[in-house]
Amino acid sequence: MTLLKIDACFSPKLYPVYADNESIVVIIDVLRATSAICTAFHHGAAKIIPVATVDEARALQAQGFLAGAERDAIKVEGFDFGNSPYDYMGDHVNGKTIVLTTTNGTQAIEAAKNAYQVVVGAFSNITVLCDWLVQQDRSVLLLCSGWKNRFNLEDSLFAGAVTAELVKRSDKYKLGDGCLALEYLYKMAKEDPMKFLARASHKERLAALNLKKDIKYCLTPDQTKVIPVLKDGALVKWEA
Amino acid sequence: MTLLKIDACFSPKLYPVYADNESIVVIIDVLRATSAICTAFHHGAAKIIPVATVDEARALQAQGFLAGAERDAIKVEGFDFGNSPYDYMGDHVNGKTIVLTTTNGTQAIEAAKNAYQVVVGAFSNITVLCDWLVQQDRSVLLLCSGWKNRFNLEDSLFAGAVTAELVKRSDKYKLGDGCLALEYLYKMAKEDPMKFLARASHKERLAALNLKKDIKYCLTPDQTKVIPVLKDGALVKWEA
Repeated sequence: MTLLKIDACFSPKLYPVYADNESIVVIIDVLRATSAICTAFHHGAAKIIPVATVDEARALQAQGFLAGAERDAIKVEGFDFGNSPYDYMGDHVNGKTIVLTTTNGTQAIEAAKNAYQVVVGAFSNITVLCDWLVQQDRSVLLLCSGWKNRFNLEDSLFAGAVTAELVKRSDKYKLGDGCLALEYLYKMAKEDPMKFLARASHKERLAALNLKKDIKYCLTPDQTKVIPVLKDGALVKWEA
Repeated sequence: MTLLKIDACFSPKLYPVYADNESIVVIIDVLRATSAICTAFHHGAAKIIPVATVDEARALQAQGFLAGAERDAIKVEGFDFGNSPYDYMGDHVNGKTIVLTTTNGTQAIEAAKNAYQVVVGAFSNITVLCDWLVQQDRSVLLLCSGWKNRFNLEDSLFAGAVTAELVKRSDKYKLGDGCLALEYLYKMAKEDPMKFLARASHKERLAALNLKKDIKYCLTPDQTKVIPVLKDGALVKWEA
């Protein structure tokens, strides 16, 4: 039998090297864009329009959309939301279309927008996402958003978790070198992800911002059953 | 005290994201370019001129230089050598200047040529290299050549080994996320690197070529004391 591939790409900048016309691309930005996106859909958001620049987000906000914008982990002034999942919890997002731009996550979506299919992954939807991925019977590319095009530990940890889950569910996958490395990494980290991430670079980036609560939320698995998918340039909830 | 950085870059294509004017860049292409380069200097080569294209290598060969060229793991027709370390063992390289182009390793050198200092690392020179790096008292960037700009397992394993060795020798280093991941990985792999690499992609790339002997050689540590450094566009042996 011909095996399906699972591979990992550690930077949106490397996406063109990994791109093909067959794989489902999973966008990963654990801290915090893809976690926030899953949260918004869980709380009833109708649509999220990812845009690459703050200017585009502002222009759409001026047209009446709710809009979130984050740069360097901070909410950009004048916007409704930043990229904290807590910004997207509650009735105020229910039924709404939200425009979103972030430092890393929405850049990764932009890079992969022409893929066969683009979906959004976070610890909060990991089980439903992995069940769904196996059902699709397709190769999978795990696109880590990283930090300003650099490798980062938390996105890699999540990609390793997805790899381990897919391999556990099916023997139809063959792992690329990136996923082989991440599978090992995840096995070492899974008992205590917080400890594993204790020396990671996000500590410095987020330390001054008192984001412990956010980080804990973003590392908590299975809080929702939604799978955001990209359709005609906007994220919507997957409907079978 | 201000800590020095150790970070890892997993693709020559990502080098611009990691480049600074301070770090020593270690070029890594375990299978097989950087292993072959160390071997050539160990056997007395005077100079190795890395070039990016086969055409450049051919032009210099026509001027009378010995020249090595490898693409897709195979020696290019008409050249004196490929990228097997075994091609560079013996009196025929002693005192010679050799032109070299390879699929990955010489591309990484080309990418990093304007760094503060560029040196070549392989398992064959790992101990002398790490001793030297600690003496330099500089930040270190481990540039993995990968495979056609993709992450690969063997270069990452070596970068993890260097990270572990530097951290063992000194507490003056702070690890970037890439090196944190690789340090974990190396700890899992070090008892049996051949087994660790058993599922890696190089198996398929090199399987048909019967390179077991090469791979074993390339994974054997401390076969030489040479440290190739880039000086005026050519690699030479480091002289204190």
